[in-house]
Amino acid sequence: MALIVQKYGGTSVGDVERIKKVAERIKSIRDDGNQLVVIVSARSGVTNELIARAKAISADPSEREMDQLLSIGEQETIAFTAMALHAVGVPAISYTGAQAGIVTDKAYTKARIQSIDAAAMKADLAKGNVIIVAGFQGIDSDGQTTTLGRGGSDLSAIAIAGAIKADKCEIYTDVDGVYTADPRVVKNARKIDEISYDEMLELASSGSKVMQSRSVEFAKKYDIQFEVRSSFNHNPGTLVKEEAASMEKVVVRGVAVDKNQAKLIIHNLTDKPGTAAKVFRALADANIVVDMIVQNVGHNGVANLTFTVPSIEVNKAKQALAPVINEVGAKLSAQEEFAKLSVVGVGMKTHSGVAATLFKTLADVGVNIDLISTSEIRITVAIDQAKADDAARAIHTAFGLDKA
Amino acid sequence: MALIVQKYGGTSVGDVERIKKVAERIKSIRDDGNQLVVIVSARSGVTNELIARAKAISADPSEREMDQLLSIGEQETIAFTAMALHAVGVPAISYTGAQAGIVTDKAYTKARIQSIDAAAMKADLAKGNVIIVAGFQGIDSDGQTTTLGRGGSDLSAIAIAGAIKADKCEIYTDVDGVYTADPRVVKNARKIDEISYDEMLELASSGSKVMQSRSVEFAKKYDIQFEVRSSFNHNPGTLVKEEAASMEKVVVRGVAVDKNQAKLIIHNLTDKPGTAAKVFRALADANIVVDMIVQNVGHNGVANLTFTVPSIEVNKAKQALAPVINEVGAKLSAQEEFAKLSVVGVGMKTHSGVAATLFKTLADVGVNIDLISTSEIRITVAIDQAKADDAARAIHTAFGLDKA
Repeated sequence: MALIVQKYGGTSVGDVERIKKVAERIKSIRDDGNQLVVIVSARSGVTNELIARAKAISADPSEREMDQLLSIGEQETIAFTAMALHAVGVPAISYTGAQAGIVTDKAYTKARIQSIDAAAMKADLAKGNVIIVAGFQGIDSDGQTTTLGRGGSDLSAIAIAGAIKADKCEIYTDVDGVYTADPRVVKNARKIDEISYDEMLELASSGSKVMQSRSVEFAKKYDIQFEVRSSFNHNPGTLVKEEAASMEKVVVRGVAVDKNQAKLIIHNLTDKPGTAAKVFRALADANIVVDMIVQNVGHNGVANLTFTVPSIEVNKAKQALAPVINEVGAKLSAQEEFAKLSVVGVGMKTHSGVAATLFKTLADVGVNIDLISTSEIRITVAIDQAKADDAARAIHTAFGLDKA
Repeated sequence: MALIVQKYGGTSVGDVERIKKVAERIKSIRDDGNQLVVIVSARSGVTNELIARAKAISADPSEREMDQLLSIGEQETIAFTAMALHAVGVPAISYTGAQAGIVTDKAYTKARIQSIDAAAMKADLAKGNVIIVAGFQGIDSDGQTTTLGRGGSDLSAIAIAGAIKADKCEIYTDVDGVYTADPRVVKNARKIDEISYDEMLELASSGSKVMQSRSVEFAKKYDIQFEVRSSFNHNPGTLVKEEAASMEKVVVRGVAVDKNQAKLIIHNLTDKPGTAAKVFRALADANIVVDMIVQNVGHNGVANLTFTVPSIEVNKAKQALAPVINEVGAKLSAQEEFAKLSVVGVGMKTHSGVAATLFKTLADVGVNIDLISTSEIRITVAIDQAKADDAARAIHTAFGLDKA
């Protein structure tokens, strides 16, 4: 008998028929003698629909009221899922975030989980119930409803798995797991059986859409191993876990391409202490996440500073930077037509030559490298967007990822 | 400055435009220097839609899960209403039933309010906020979500008005108030300015659709005066209050017709102690509310027992009675084509001749009386359904209700 936490995303509970299929899956796992806590998302589309109606009422709806509103999406799914389980003879009980004891801080729309009081869940599990918990939501210490932000249901699942010391945590989604590259672009991409938290984190921040970084960060921090798998079939997925020695045998685990980044260049920035700090303070104050940063060597006392931000943030970034640019007498330009290509693998720690292979492969397919940034287990290059897919395929082959 | 409780029903908050209109009404009352606590229902249609989807998942969904599900309808409206108020510059804060401190018993789908801890509402009122509370819902002592059953939002409003000692309680609906008769049937029907709790109760149980009896019962028990009025205009409505001496000058306050009752007749019932008790015990166990009961004088040791039940309960009643009928060797028949016509007025207590006028008027329009039942302030007759509207018009005139 194992204690299993499962999380089903929006497409997995998208309609009545899908919910019934989820109930059957849960029933069969329970019939094998397991205990289950199941976290569910709002059915796909609901959240966007509610946001649209809120925007029709108020251009800038209050964050507290948005959380009060958006939490109903998951509340609908928990009730329907519990009913579907009852219909197939499985005792089940639904929990809102508050009822599940998920206490967060007071940061509406992006709250952080502070603690989980699992006593009620444990008592209901002991009585033989399957527990269905609303993902994405919690309650603050004053009883206010909060939501966890994008990817919040994954975070709910991982945090609950940690709190109840689950034997397994399974994140069900509409893909089979984490791939060596985007299978729509790289035909020979293969599903990865095991990946380390760090690799998963690097992939998430390099354009892989499977999970948000913060859920993986949480899992890494508390070492809560989880499996990403599909609710549309019974194939095994990708196990995300602490780094194992064997993982270093594989030099590159995967290739990720991100076409949703824009490059901002500040020309003729006075090269004196504190100037760059002003730039990034202005961006941080506007809540803009900056990714790659490169500054060339200054000559004549001025330098060019280049960095990347998400494409949708370009205008916000320009506005935030205007006063600084003005103050220091520099010039700002933006380039949106580029792509960020990353190779990720813990094996890089102990293998040399990864950068050399990467750069040679790019040269072979005629791709010029614009910016380079690296971490211990990742190399990222900024390249021409039009050539990114070709480059990804060549690199996938060059690092031997085509073969099992 | 007054402390005003308002309740807006499903049609009043039916879409974004209606919600904005409600926000404007609230703003204008607040601008006059008043404090407001506003109770809202789910927008019309939502509850039925959720019920339909629940039934698609499970033929007999659990009552706990139904409450978990249905409470989201009101939760949507509170957030939207608060946002609409923010958009017109009014500070507002939404409360779920739980956040409003509405504690109920554990009877899912028909919970009774046990207490209201108004401390949080009072604190937010003192800060200048308009409070928006989800009607129809509460929380039990274990933190489980409960709902109050049909007409529950009216009950929430009246209970909150009592708890915070409001100066006024206004129930906004899609009609202008309580009428002397159904205006669709009786052209000369007039809006009633003031009515006693008891009269309102008798009207509610006699087929008037304006409010459910239990909200009025609650208001009467705690003497919480309220006004029923329309959210579609600014006309004064009907004030429902404790009986005043002046009310007795009006003999008959209103006429109500109920065509949704069925008559059940048990023929040849053995006329011995305990037989009738068995019949009504069987009906009570099946949760069927019996209204008029008439038994004729027994001869040859057998009697006929006649009573009325809501039409939709006829089949359930037949099933519930089958074993008893069988046991005592009687025969059961049902008649659905009849109407219940009632005249109601506290004036009846001190005026004689009401029954005589009623019966003479019915005779004049050729209507035969089938059953009669009376209370201190009501006379009800069961008559031919086809003639019920004509009868109502004649009686409305006979009791002088046509004129102001």
